[in-house]
Amino acid sequence: MPEPREHPIADAVVIGAGPVGLFQVFQLGLQGIRAHVVDALAHAGGQCTELYADKPIYDIPGVPRCTGSELVALLLRQTAPFAPRWQFGCLVQTLQAQPDGSFVLGCSDGAQLHARQVFIAAGLGAFVPKRLPLPGLERFEGRQVFYANAIPAPAASAGLQVVVHGGEESAVAQAVALAERRQCAGGDAGAGAPASVTLLHRRDVFHAPPEQLARLQQLRDAGLLQVVAGQITGFQTTREARVEHQTKQVTERIACQDLNANGAPAERLCALELLTPAGQTERLPLDQLQALLGISPRLGPIADWGLALERKQLRVDPATMATSVPGIYAVGDINSYPGKRKLLVCGFHEATLAAWAAAEARAGQPLPLQYTTTSPRLQERLGARVHE
Amino acid sequence: MPEPREHPIADAVVIGAGPVGLFQVFQLGLQGIRAHVVDALAHAGGQCTELYADKPIYDIPGVPRCTGSELVALLLRQTAPFAPRWQFGCLVQTLQAQPDGSFVLGCSDGAQLHARQVFIAAGLGAFVPKRLPLPGLERFEGRQVFYANAIPAPAASAGLQVVVHGGEESAVAQAVALAERRQCAGGDAGAGAPASVTLLHRRDVFHAPPEQLARLQQLRDAGLLQVVAGQITGFQTTREARVEHQTKQVTERIACQDLNANGAPAERLCALELLTPAGQTERLPLDQLQALLGISPRLGPIADWGLALERKQLRVDPATMATSVPGIYAVGDINSYPGKRKLLVCGFHEATLAAWAAAEARAGQPLPLQYTTTSPRLQERLGARVHE
Repeated sequence: MPEPREHPIADAVVIGAGPVGLFQVFQLGLQGIRAHVVDALAHAGGQCTELYADKPIYDIPGVPRCTGSELVALLLRQTAPFAPRWQFGCLVQTLQAQPDGSFVLGCSDGAQLHARQVFIAAGLGAFVPKRLPLPGLERFEGRQVFYANAIPAPAASAGLQVVVHGGEESAVAQAVALAERRQCAGGDAGAGAPASVTLLHRRDVFHAPPEQLARLQQLRDAGLLQVVAGQITGFQTTREARVEHQTKQVTERIACQDLNANGAPAERLCALELLTPAGQTERLPLDQLQALLGISPRLGPIADWGLALERKQLRVDPATMATSVPGIYAVGDINSYPGKRKLLVCGFHEATLAAWAAAEARAGQPLPLQYTTTSPRLQERLGARVHE
Repeated sequence: MPEPREHPIADAVVIGAGPVGLFQVFQLGLQGIRAHVVDALAHAGGQCTELYADKPIYDIPGVPRCTGSELVALLLRQTAPFAPRWQFGCLVQTLQAQPDGSFVLGCSDGAQLHARQVFIAAGLGAFVPKRLPLPGLERFEGRQVFYANAIPAPAASAGLQVVVHGGEESAVAQAVALAERRQCAGGDAGAGAPASVTLLHRRDVFHAPPEQLARLQQLRDAGLLQVVAGQITGFQTTREARVEHQTKQVTERIACQDLNANGAPAERLCALELLTPAGQTERLPLDQLQALLGISPRLGPIADWGLALERKQLRVDPATMATSVPGIYAVGDINSYPGKRKLLVCGFHEATLAAWAAAEARAGQPLPLQYTTTSPRLQERLGARVHE
């Protein structure tokens, strides 16, 4: 685990760089408040980029049609004058109120953030890879089991029996890429290719572009890749003494990587138990499982921060978007108030009210409304030349 | 007065074609509700077009910069798939609830509208010309006194002593245009030109483009136009028997136009009383007053419709934007609720909630949220082709 790093106190931390988080940054900027933005993903956009990157959106006022990525690009341009600090690939795990009313946030990468005000724009939650619901399997994660956000480099699969699990494009592409390494190596495992590649899905039907499906078929025909249809119902480990066919070479590789606290070889995952479409039970041996099952949003640790919840949403005052903890605001799909609709146009309004409420809380008094069209002060903050 | 015209019952009447009214049309369209839009102005855009047509707006989410007219054009494009019916130049004066829960609206042009639901998106109110605050002057309106929205055609000023009142471009332009008719006619009143043109403003300083100010000076130098500096403190009429210098020709023209109910010549406005910048009282004789003092928004008759008000705003339920009368919703600058900010981004949210509330009121049950990105039904309504 990396050393905790402490940042100087930020005026505002915005959790979530989806469209509403980005507009939160913009509205805070208009109020003269600079934002530090954190997101679990590696880039801005959130759900909009993950799920709708190329899909059309028609209901943004003044934008008759745009795709998810186009909307994110427009919002990034809009926030640019306010030069937010970005921190990607960081899931905020803890949030603790300090005696002076500020907050310390603990991130998944070990970083600590210190903020005067916090704006939770986390949408449906952090986007995290879907995991297999098999109790106990998590103890192999990062060693033999890998999910969408942490697939190992191809060299790490050299000499191993790899199972790629999933039915969508990302799983097909990964299986094809690994099988192509076998093809290049001429079937010689010593040349850095996997010993075997298995694409596992509940049935032998895949969603991917036609040219990729054709390539998959070629590699199957060439014996470089096998497709197995079945649902994973369990798994077997070396502790269960059911190891049947591990090459000595592989055993040595694993043993030297995975030693437990006593220096003894750690327990290893050695096979999956499957239920085939025909209703039969099968056993699929493996050294490495790459599960590409998509990523989905999860409320995650936010539920543990002591904020009032209502049906897994953060309850807010609709006049200010304040949560039950003073200084913490929630905007977008993650919040709840009477009449709430989970639409971007509503999230943009919420971010606006939250920025006003936060600015007034700092000022200790109501602030006069100003318009970007007429206020030289706002135009200066925007870096816009004032025309007369 | 024109004959009352009755339209068939509309699903929804939207009062106000400013940006929020236009987005209301869009959101109603998504709900499958077609809108009939009325506005006091001759075109869409409201305040945005009247006050900010060429000024930049920076705080529309996803639109880093646009002018008022550009925003209106974008919103018109967005509403186009829903083919709203437009009725411009119509100020809604009366609104009466019917026993069946629908509404009859009476317009300034004599038209009557019948609607199941009404959405008031009237901004700061209808844009109406600023009037002179002189009690009693209104009885000459339309005969001798004219304001910005109803300036008579130049021919109607033939032979008359015309006073143009105002210090901005519109007043300067009108005075110049009338004086140019005198120039063309060679000073001959019989050729359709005014007998005299006076530009009246509180001081001899005008806001207009340089070339127009130069033309004004030329016409003054040529004796075709006089500028008078002074504030209007009162007026004189023929009843007050103070008429001093009316030509016989003009008296005859007026007498034949303005007969009272008994067939006798009606009372006439014959002079303005002025206070000059030097503090002196002066008398300015005239036949016709054209007051071009700008147009400004006024709540107007909406205050008399029996809807709950709060500081001249319509009080709404923030969850639904419903006013105190079921079936009437208010959105944008005209409404009030805890936390209200008079910003377009908030108005867009309000129009969205109002459309949902109205649709659910019709359906008699909650409706599931649908997204334009994924719902074939919404995309069909939008006339958008569904790509897969």
